[in-house]
Amino acid sequence: MVDAIKKLREKTNAGIVACQKALKDSSGDVDKAIEILRKQGVALASRKMGRSAKEGRVESYIHLGGKIGVLVEIDCESDFVARNEDFKTFVKDVAMQVAASNPIFVGKEDVSEEAVKKETEIIKAQLTGKPAQAVDKIIEGKLAKFFEDACLLEQPFIKDSSMKVRDVVTSMIAKIGENIVVRRFVRFQVGEEVK
Amino acid sequence: MVDAIKKLREKTNAGIVACQKALKDSSGDVDKAIEILRKQGVALASRKMGRSAKEGRVESYIHLGGKIGVLVEIDCESDFVARNEDFKTFVKDVAMQVAASNPIFVGKEDVSEEAVKKETEIIKAQLTGKPAQAVDKIIEGKLAKFFEDACLLEQPFIKDSSMKVRDVVTSMIAKIGENIVVRRFVRFQVGEEVK
Repeated sequence: MVDAIKKLREKTNAGIVACQKALKDSSGDVDKAIEILRKQGVALASRKMGRSAKEGRVESYIHLGGKIGVLVEIDCESDFVARNEDFKTFVKDVAMQVAASNPIFVGKEDVSEEAVKKETEIIKAQLTGKPAQAVDKIIEGKLAKFFEDACLLEQPFIKDSSMKVRDVVTSMIAKIGENIVVRRFVRFQVGEEVK
Repeated sequence: MVDAIKKLREKTNAGIVACQKALKDSSGDVDKAIEILRKQGVALASRKMGRSAKEGRVESYIHLGGKIGVLVEIDCESDFVARNEDFKTFVKDVAMQVAASNPIFVGKEDVSEEAVKKETEIIKAQLTGKPAQAVDKIIEGKLAKFFEDACLLEQPFIKDSSMKVRDVVTSMIAKIGENIVVRRFVRFQVGEEVK
């Protein structure tokens, strides 16, 4: 039971009491308890998500002895949370994620229609000769993969690939009780073409 | 003499022999010797400046407990120089400069014609009622000030306001013997409007 609670807390960031209750509700099944807590977290988080986040934290991550550098800004509602250790660790983790996974956009909503159109054309060009009824399905799947590669929030979290970065944000919101917004990031790599 | 050489080296980054010679040529006048060395440095540097800089270093500077963050990329010709301690210190200094002085562009050549036009209009709007012959002169002066504020390379260097950042780059090129290019920077400040 103690191990199960420990595992649950690591996975979901939920409090001890919530973990105990979820384990009881799932009859001790950890995976089911995670599911229960995630749903609760999402419900809790969705009530915070509209709130304005004007405080926050800028963090950097320098990789490969200065060949790659990342700057991220993640916002929250109060300076108190901006100085919270869990929040600070989260901001650092996201900076590391950007260094490792090289996203282009923060979320799906930041991908321009133009970029989606261009990507669709690239996929179509690779599909000559396929039956028409298969093409739409393939495009849908490849676009989903494109969003997962290109959008930070859709990427698997580097510290736990069972979650998307978006899920980690949600669980942080549920845990901390403030809206949290990944505002922006930038990644410089020595030798790359500068736009 | 030893003190004068020490001061000269600090100011110009030139070698001991060059400093001794410059002091001899200036009859011991340190200011004149600086002038001589700067001219030599500029001459030396200008021969390097066309060369391609594909190596380099990305550095960050986080200010005010995470409220301001800066990322800069400064390029050089070899990885050997990218790992040079003087070069690393210089990159760090530039990151700190960006945090403190909030430039918008790297150099004058990065300011769009549109931005200059807009700035000129703002200045003109403040000059109603002045005699026409004075207006051009005032605009010229205010534009020069605008470039000095907005362009990193035109700003006074935070560690020695007698030099522009551009002059520090030149003296680094002369000292290190490779072309050095301030490639790009970004500055995030929590609470500012995101473009």
